[in-house]
Amino acid sequence: MSGLMQRSQSVVDQVVFGADGLVVAVVQDASDGAVLMVAYMNDEALARTLDTGRTWFWSRSRQEYWQKGETSGDRQHVREVRIDCDGDALLVIVDQEGQGACHTGERSCFYRSAATGPGLVGA
Amino acid sequence: MSGLMQRSQSVVDQVVFGADGLVVAVVQDASDGAVLMVAYMNDEALARTLDTGRTWFWSRSRQEYWQKGETSGDRQHVREVRIDCDGDALLVIVDQEGQGACHTGERSCFYRSAATGPGLVGA
Repeated sequence: MSGLMQRSQSVVDQVVFGADGLVVAVVQDASDGAVLMVAYMNDEALARTLDTGRTWFWSRSRQEYWQKGETSGDRQHVREVRIDCDGDALLVIVDQEGQGACHTGERSCFYRSAATGPGLVGA
Repeated sequence: MSGLMQRSQSVVDQVVFGADGLVVAVVQDASDGAVLMVAYMNDEALARTLDTGRTWFWSRSRQEYWQKGETSGDRQHVREVRIDCDGDALLVIVDQEGQGACHTGERSCFYRSAATGPGLVGA
């Protein structure tokens, strides 16, 4: 086992995966802090992310691994993986390549505002 | 039904809740874009958030509603709720009151770095 793989395993071991074997991953742009997308990783997707420096996820709808940008070219190069206080959420800080993270062509998947305003009054 | 409540319902109707009735909510600090925490909302928690302008969540472990900061004083005042492309994740942009969002006393729940570096080499 390579040093990289051993290190990935030590990170994977810190994560509390859900009953479905998944952990939620929030992807944030290193350049300005924009939240780009939310997706899910199982242990293998996380290990692949750590070992390759590119984001890998588990598609709940397609039930398969996907590497972000593999087909679109909108690759994510991982700068850092952070883990939350109780270990059941990841923050993945990336350099986003291409036009953005969303399959719609938007930069962020969160391009729709549902409600705005102080106390949300007037939204 | 008040105007506020009607508006909340129209937002709730846009969300694709999971089989467990929950949607993941990423909470981001309006001041600098820091990702503070990840938690879950059901339809009622989201409606309460929209109607009160303060974050409400559903605790999966305690199986109860909780209003962030109700006991700690670390309240979150909601500026905006954004919804992702496929409707199954929320981005809640807040003004964080008090010392931070994490129950540990840290500002962000993501205070632990699991791996860093270009391509994660050298982490």
